[in-house]
Amino acid sequence: MKVSELGRRTGVQVPLIKYYLREGLLPPGRATAANQAEYGEDHVHRLRFIRTLIGTRGLSVSATKEILDAITAEQEDLHQVFGIALGVRPTRMEEDAGTEPPAKEQAPEPAGLADAHRLIAEMGWEVSRGNPAAHTLAEVLAALADLGADIDWRGLLPYARLADSIADLDVGQMSGERDLLAQAERAVLVAVLLEPALLALRRLAQEGKSARHFGGGRPGEATST
Amino acid sequence: MKVSELGRRTGVQVPLIKYYLREGLLPPGRATAANQAEYGEDHVHRLRFIRTLIGTRGLSVSATKEILDAITAEQEDLHQVFGIALGVRPTRMEEDAGTEPPAKEQAPEPAGLADAHRLIAEMGWEVSRGNPAAHTLAEVLAALADLGADIDWRGLLPYARLADSIADLDVGQMSGERDLLAQAERAVLVAVLLEPALLALRRLAQEGKSARHFGGGRPGEATST
Repeated sequence: MKVSELGRRTGVQVPLIKYYLREGLLPPGRATAANQAEYGEDHVHRLRFIRTLIGTRGLSVSATKEILDAITAEQEDLHQVFGIALGVRPTRMEEDAGTEPPAKEQAPEPAGLADAHRLIAEMGWEVSRGNPAAHTLAEVLAALADLGADIDWRGLLPYARLADSIADLDVGQMSGERDLLAQAERAVLVAVLLEPALLALRRLAQEGKSARHFGGGRPGEATST
Repeated sequence: MKVSELGRRTGVQVPLIKYYLREGLLPPGRATAANQAEYGEDHVHRLRFIRTLIGTRGLSVSATKEILDAITAEQEDLHQVFGIALGVRPTRMEEDAGTEPPAKEQAPEPAGLADAHRLIAEMGWEVSRGNPAAHTLAEVLAALADLGADIDWRGLLPYARLADSIADLDVGQMSGERDLLAQAERAVLVAVLLEPALLALRRLAQEGKSARHFGGGRPGEATST
């Protein structure tokens, strides 16, 4: 199909498609004339995937490109693809002589990092040093301490146990796909796209419970249908 | 204490404190001279709270002001405070004659909204029509369908059940505080500040499980301490 048809099929405007082609997010079509190319179903699929990561999930073009490159290059190594989608780049044996210093040396250690690692150890999670989620957790723990809230790393353990169950579901989502490329894409979907869904589910559950616990005689404009 | 001391205590620069004062995020100090004011421990606490919402959580100044105003105005109504922190404004009986139209009429219904409400109904969550989380959920469901992923609203039910357990923990966090203002603040902390912590915990658990399931002979640079 022509680029105009590709745009019609996916709802993405042609100038934006051309931008994704220039940036290498979308592989080039099969050239049919000096200034024309033919696109296939793979392009439709890839373009929808791009729009999900950028549009629905709010990733930057460069982060999206990094993930797409990882899917193509590392599709045989799901741990790598998953790691890149999580913002981690697990060390590979054959890349040990790489030039990048570990993330730990780049940024100053945030307050709360020791407590974050206590929680991680308690949960038995083996994570790479550069996992930015440990720093996020550290920041939240530091902020809670700063505010005098009596929630420390032990107070987050019940949340950690539920997060562990969620990750079990996530890994279970990956077992269905046979095709390596589809499996790699699925890893990204689960890692990246389910994040907003999960927060949304918690907020919906919270509102329901908040109404029951604190709403008293003011049920508001509620609907469950 | 003087504003300079307030800055020293909280690590917030004086021009930024003055900006928060002008914007009404921070209540004025007690005037001691034409151009001087005295600040107390309440200001230290409030300023740390502001920095948590804006700095750690990444909220805008206006969103932060709305939440702070809600804490002050609605501290007797935890359901309201919780709702505003969640981005919902539950309808109050005495405000029924308000001028704002329901959010439902403002935006076009996203694809997937019917499925989102099926899930909400299945979980028995009573949520207000304007809860933006229902729209987020709808967008994710639509994106999954668009990409041909075989995860529909039923596939998200196991996640919804875990989110329900998380919300139980959240509500349990609120029972400790006696003071109404502290309770309202706590509701905001739990609703807003635990979000990045929860995603971080899931990412840490995911990396641990990914290494075990997909890592094979490449354990990478792992640490659990």
